[in-house]
Amino acid sequence: MKRDIDLLLESAAQVVTVDPARMRSGGEDEEARAVGAISGGAVAIDRGRILDVGRTDRLRDLYRAGRTIDASGRVVTPGLIDPHTHLVFGGQRHLEFGLRMKGADYQEILASGGGIHSTVAATRKTPVDELVDGAAKRLEKMLEFGVTTVEVKSGYGLDVETELKILETVRCLAERCPQRLVPTYLGAHVIPKEFADRRQAYVDLMIGEMIPKIAREQLAVACDVFLDNGAYTRDETEAILTAAVAAGLRPKVHAGQFSDQGGPELIAGLNGLSADHLEQISEAGIEAMAQAGVVANLLPGAAYSLRDHFPDGRRLIDRGVDVAVATDDNPGSSRTENLPLMASMAVTRMGLTCAEGMKAVTTNAAKALDLAGEIGAIIPGMAADLAVFDIPDFRALFYHFGMNHTAMVIAKGTIAIEEERR
Amino acid sequence: MKRDIDLLLESAAQVVTVDPARMRSGGEDEEARAVGAISGGAVAIDRGRILDVGRTDRLRDLYRAGRTIDASGRVVTPGLIDPHTHLVFGGQRHLEFGLRMKGADYQEILASGGGIHSTVAATRKTPVDELVDGAAKRLEKMLEFGVTTVEVKSGYGLDVETELKILETVRCLAERCPQRLVPTYLGAHVIPKEFADRRQAYVDLMIGEMIPKIAREQLAVACDVFLDNGAYTRDETEAILTAAVAAGLRPKVHAGQFSDQGGPELIAGLNGLSADHLEQISEAGIEAMAQAGVVANLLPGAAYSLRDHFPDGRRLIDRGVDVAVATDDNPGSSRTENLPLMASMAVTRMGLTCAEGMKAVTTNAAKALDLAGEIGAIIPGMAADLAVFDIPDFRALFYHFGMNHTAMVIAKGTIAIEEERR
Repeated sequence: MKRDIDLLLESAAQVVTVDPARMRSGGEDEEARAVGAISGGAVAIDRGRILDVGRTDRLRDLYRAGRTIDASGRVVTPGLIDPHTHLVFGGQRHLEFGLRMKGADYQEILASGGGIHSTVAATRKTPVDELVDGAAKRLEKMLEFGVTTVEVKSGYGLDVETELKILETVRCLAERCPQRLVPTYLGAHVIPKEFADRRQAYVDLMIGEMIPKIAREQLAVACDVFLDNGAYTRDETEAILTAAVAAGLRPKVHAGQFSDQGGPELIAGLNGLSADHLEQISEAGIEAMAQAGVVANLLPGAAYSLRDHFPDGRRLIDRGVDVAVATDDNPGSSRTENLPLMASMAVTRMGLTCAEGMKAVTTNAAKALDLAGEIGAIIPGMAADLAVFDIPDFRALFYHFGMNHTAMVIAKGTIAIEEERR
Repeated sequence: MKRDIDLLLESAAQVVTVDPARMRSGGEDEEARAVGAISGGAVAIDRGRILDVGRTDRLRDLYRAGRTIDASGRVVTPGLIDPHTHLVFGGQRHLEFGLRMKGADYQEILASGGGIHSTVAATRKTPVDELVDGAAKRLEKMLEFGVTTVEVKSGYGLDVETELKILETVRCLAERCPQRLVPTYLGAHVIPKEFADRRQAYVDLMIGEMIPKIAREQLAVACDVFLDNGAYTRDETEAILTAAVAAGLRPKVHAGQFSDQGGPELIAGLNGLSADHLEQISEAGIEAMAQAGVVANLLPGAAYSLRDHFPDGRRLIDRGVDVAVATDDNPGSSRTENLPLMASMAVTRMGLTCAEGMKAVTTNAAKALDLAGEIGAIIPGMAADLAVFDIPDFRALFYHFGMNHTAMVIAKGTIAIEEERR
């Protein structure tokens, strides 16, 4: 007697489970085992959840599916997770990019009122419906790359009204797009121009008004601070994140993009989710992150676009830090929705293996968003967020780079993208 | 009285002509002038040729078009040109990529019979129709990125029969796909295994049999040699290319990928088209290329995939060398069809400005293929090969990276790709 289920994805070249229980044995090569790959695998989906995963013949015997999808010659992975984006913004900065590529300096542009400040000015002027439309387009492109969960930060408002407007935009997007969105409050992105001479007053505004209001209205689940030269100091960061924790938000930090200010140690001490960027990091910082289980969210797109060196992913992994990778999609320093390319860059330029690149946009990214157990692996009971790629092996996602290999995306059990087979 | 024409592309945010005559004046910023951009521009197309280009209002007054295409909010550029690919091959090498990303060395893999040798074995076994199908898929992806001209090398046969089979595959593809293909003979890719102990015999075979036959049957217009450690010596390269020139083929060379063996000086002395790779190059080599007008075809995808350093495009341009950029699409060291991403990498990692990135995949790439005057710019009389991108400014092609921005592709005056407007 077969059990009725909604959907059976079957006959995949590989089902990449990223399930630790499947990484210990199996007949495939070492690298395929390292991501818990099942050759000729299938996934049974019912009521938005993964019900079963295994060899196709076994699942065919057990289930009668409302719809059966042939994944032969294709690779099934967990829906990809982008754990660091700034995708709600007004304006574009391709002209500034052009100037930087002619030699202008990013931090000089910022100091002269360009950079983030120009996006803040544009975002304040942009009505909510236009912000929603712009971000919805970016989310659609992300979906096309197989991304089913996206962290979204505020931080281009820098006043009470606009920070709330951005987070309300995220709430609106969450209802409208198929993906799971994870909102983060980043009021402490830079010091707003109006507060240039009285930065403590802005810190007080965040702690006294913004954070309590955002936590009360459940507009964010986490709080981030940009700790660096030209942004926030270590002491300011600690004060803001401590207030956020007290209000029930999980802390995270932009750390070490331009200089190491002790962000990793600070966030480890606060039991934070992630330290992001880490182009610069000390041995003590790495040790603190490894001990506390803080995820390193590496952002190759920012190093790429700023002509900076790539962070050393290999060093972090070798010291026991979980590495995730994100697009950092934003109008200034990393304009891309292509998360698979970011993972490929992490492999070729930051020393990760292909298996580590896969984990960086699945399980480790889920952990960075406090969603391990719910998404990021193909394990019975988890949400049915899946990507199907038209490649013969998961390594081709990194090897055949800069492309869109997506053939199907399933978000919360529903088919969100489906390419016709040719 | 208006003149009847086939097609009018009008109201573009920018028409990027890459026309030197338009680079001297104009109301736009310096970077837009450097690519001869026309704001609110239009292109008149008739009988497969560019008839006129200029402001939309002027062209509307002059022509009555069979079809008018609204390019508002979009950028029109010359069809992109990929001047270095190896896209006819059998087999895949993602497993080898996985091993390399775990630390295995490319040249060691090659020496142990993997690498290029494994692709040669697979290509010899693959029937022509399968080679055609595989390459046609790659050409279709290239077309989707706005690429209307593609150089294609042989070099995975390394025997008379298979080298001819590959070049016949290219001929077959040229009839079937919308793009212009430029075939290059690369019998001297590596020394075939069968000739490992008698390399001179293989050089003699190329010079005595392959080159005359290929030239006679017009299966290639150029001859390339891989000059490097583990491949061909400088003397062998000179002998092969000299024979090719005598047979009527234009010479080019893979030079300096792993070591500088004097390839740039050699190819300059032979009045060659291009020296390709150039991760390693001497001052004398640069000087020789600049003097002789030899194009530098830089291949960021190979440096990317091999974890090598990127060639220094800035240094070459500053010394007067014309720089082009190619995908190097091949199964071993650069598996991508995304030429705009290659140009973006040239901008962010190799020191080019956005204007130089644009020229690298248009005019300079045309020069590298001996097709300047026919393609690579939007100038009356040239072939109507055009790409339309859904971006507000040409700089966004490099800034908003890893994406496919193509909205329309026109190849030889015919619309080959057309996205619906949303």
